[in-house]
Amino acid sequence: MIKTIEWTDEGVRMLDQRLLPAEEKYLMLRSYEEVAEAIKKMVVRGAPAIGVSAAMGLALGASQSVGTSVADLEDDFDYMCKVMSETRPTAVNLFWAIERMRQTFRREQSKDTRPEAIKACLIAEAQQIFTEDIAANRALGRFGAELLADGDTVLTHCNAGALATAGDYGTALGVIRGAIDAGKRIAVIADETRPFLQGLRLTAWELAKDNIPVTVITDNMAGHVMKSGKVNAVVVGADRIAGNGDTANKIGTYMVAVLAREHKIPFYVAAPISTLDLTLKTGAAIPIEERDPREVTHIKEHQLAPDGVGVQNPAFDVTPNELIAAIITDRGVARAPYVESLQGLMATSAVGSGG
Amino acid sequence: MIKTIEWTDEGVRMLDQRLLPAEEKYLMLRSYEEVAEAIKKMVVRGAPAIGVSAAMGLALGASQSVGTSVADLEDDFDYMCKVMSETRPTAVNLFWAIERMRQTFRREQSKDTRPEAIKACLIAEAQQIFTEDIAANRALGRFGAELLADGDTVLTHCNAGALATAGDYGTALGVIRGAIDAGKRIAVIADETRPFLQGLRLTAWELAKDNIPVTVITDNMAGHVMKSGKVNAVVVGADRIAGNGDTANKIGTYMVAVLAREHKIPFYVAAPISTLDLTLKTGAAIPIEERDPREVTHIKEHQLAPDGVGVQNPAFDVTPNELIAAIITDRGVARAPYVESLQGLMATSAVGSGG
Repeated sequence: MIKTIEWTDEGVRMLDQRLLPAEEKYLMLRSYEEVAEAIKKMVVRGAPAIGVSAAMGLALGASQSVGTSVADLEDDFDYMCKVMSETRPTAVNLFWAIERMRQTFRREQSKDTRPEAIKACLIAEAQQIFTEDIAANRALGRFGAELLADGDTVLTHCNAGALATAGDYGTALGVIRGAIDAGKRIAVIADETRPFLQGLRLTAWELAKDNIPVTVITDNMAGHVMKSGKVNAVVVGADRIAGNGDTANKIGTYMVAVLAREHKIPFYVAAPISTLDLTLKTGAAIPIEERDPREVTHIKEHQLAPDGVGVQNPAFDVTPNELIAAIITDRGVARAPYVESLQGLMATSAVGSGG
Repeated sequence: MIKTIEWTDEGVRMLDQRLLPAEEKYLMLRSYEEVAEAIKKMVVRGAPAIGVSAAMGLALGASQSVGTSVADLEDDFDYMCKVMSETRPTAVNLFWAIERMRQTFRREQSKDTRPEAIKACLIAEAQQIFTEDIAANRALGRFGAELLADGDTVLTHCNAGALATAGDYGTALGVIRGAIDAGKRIAVIADETRPFLQGLRLTAWELAKDNIPVTVITDNMAGHVMKSGKVNAVVVGADRIAGNGDTANKIGTYMVAVLAREHKIPFYVAAPISTLDLTLKTGAAIPIEERDPREVTHIKEHQLAPDGVGVQNPAFDVTPNELIAAIITDRGVARAPYVESLQGLMATSAVGSGG
């Protein structure tokens, strides 16, 4: 099992995804600032993984707080939440995880007034979020598996795999792994996903590790490959899903969705419930992160573009709900009209949560 | 003026496009084999530039033939044509230029039986092809300029500029330069165009050199940028245009065309008449070159993908005629139905050729 993020006695252990596939190197992050920096610099990326990382970072930071009163701890914790919330703007799982840690703080505060008790609960909560993420992806993998047929070739964009989550299954790749675990033969076509090359570097790496057949294409080949009849379904992850089903995901996802419709290929989004943001009516309200132009102009230390050329680098785009055949979550599969189906899933209990 | 290819007394001088924009280095190619190798290795690329290069390579090769009879020269020349025709399969300008050099050989052979006379004519013909290419692009630039409005932002894919032709204006960028020379303000959005990054490296470089405002995006941003309303028109080049208007061009062009239609943005193809292949009824018959996977898995010497990952690398795709608003040539602008309009243009005389 790929261990994207792990809670250890020494700190938060993270696989440095910037170095993959050349190097499989793990960093030991020993403060909440180091975790925040790792999220910002994309040591770790992928909405669920960012959420889990943020929770662990807050637990780590709180555990190191030297305040002797709950009030001191609360001040420290609030500041840490602020720092953590400013790392990346698009993935709602970040804010979801921070809010859940805040609620844990408040709940414990009302029960126990010793800082150490609250710290212990925050650590337990971060580990719970980790465990639930693994379970959620297993669950959505089972639901999604039913949408794929034996022999299908699935195109995916970016990396929505073990590396984009707490580890293990992943979301979009969780659906693929779920289908394979259900005995279906599935082949994957991975868009390389410029500029960060999550497809070429990460999806290819983790699928190859699991012996799942994968072919990498440049992003601009997706249309040509679909036209040639080689793609049976598209499955992607999500960074934030609005109330109407509009989905923010890695830049290029919208393009893939338009091409899928053009070629009558079903386009599926796979994400845990924590990626839903029902406070937003439509995708128009989702903030889209603009990242450093250097990610486009350079590869590693290599400058590829002329000096000073203008560059745009939006990290995400929004796919309108009408292009989405279904949204696969850990609580079931939502279909249009999404306003109703997503609210319905949100109201149901988590699978296996026992209540 | 950018001098992509030049005939000199020493040989064929070529800008090494693999090194741009980091280095502006010119190679002196001293044999037809070196020219063939330069085409194959993409020292020079772009359909019109390949055609001009092939003609110059054949002229150079013929001029170096040591045969004392016309029969010897013909044997040598036929072999050179064969080598040259095997460099790259998709751009029809290559075969067009080779055929034109063959015809020149036959025409001169029927008039003069001295090898030296034939050699001189082949050199003159190659230079004529060069001159006509510059003139053709100026002409199509004037025709195309009328399709763009003052203040337009034009998205282009790959490099169909000075660097894709004999030099000077280019085809798609010739339309943009034509509009600017007609007093219109035009901004350009350039797809970076993986895997060879012609947009990021070449289009950005030559437009910046001409002070034409250019913003580079990764290929997967095209949909997002179009959706945001920033693009007024798309203009691309072509490697081969079938009788019905179906157009082979750099991989990703088809995707851009689908996205343009989705956003109601006119999609134009700009190419000289030598890019028409009316022997092919549809684009389905156009051979699509599959290139080395290393172009996708590596950047320079840097390996980005995991060892042994499967890769597809088709260098071109075919855009069906129904997605093309107009085909801009040096003899005028063709619109649907293309079977008639393209045949009509083919039958007309070249602009400025005097008959």
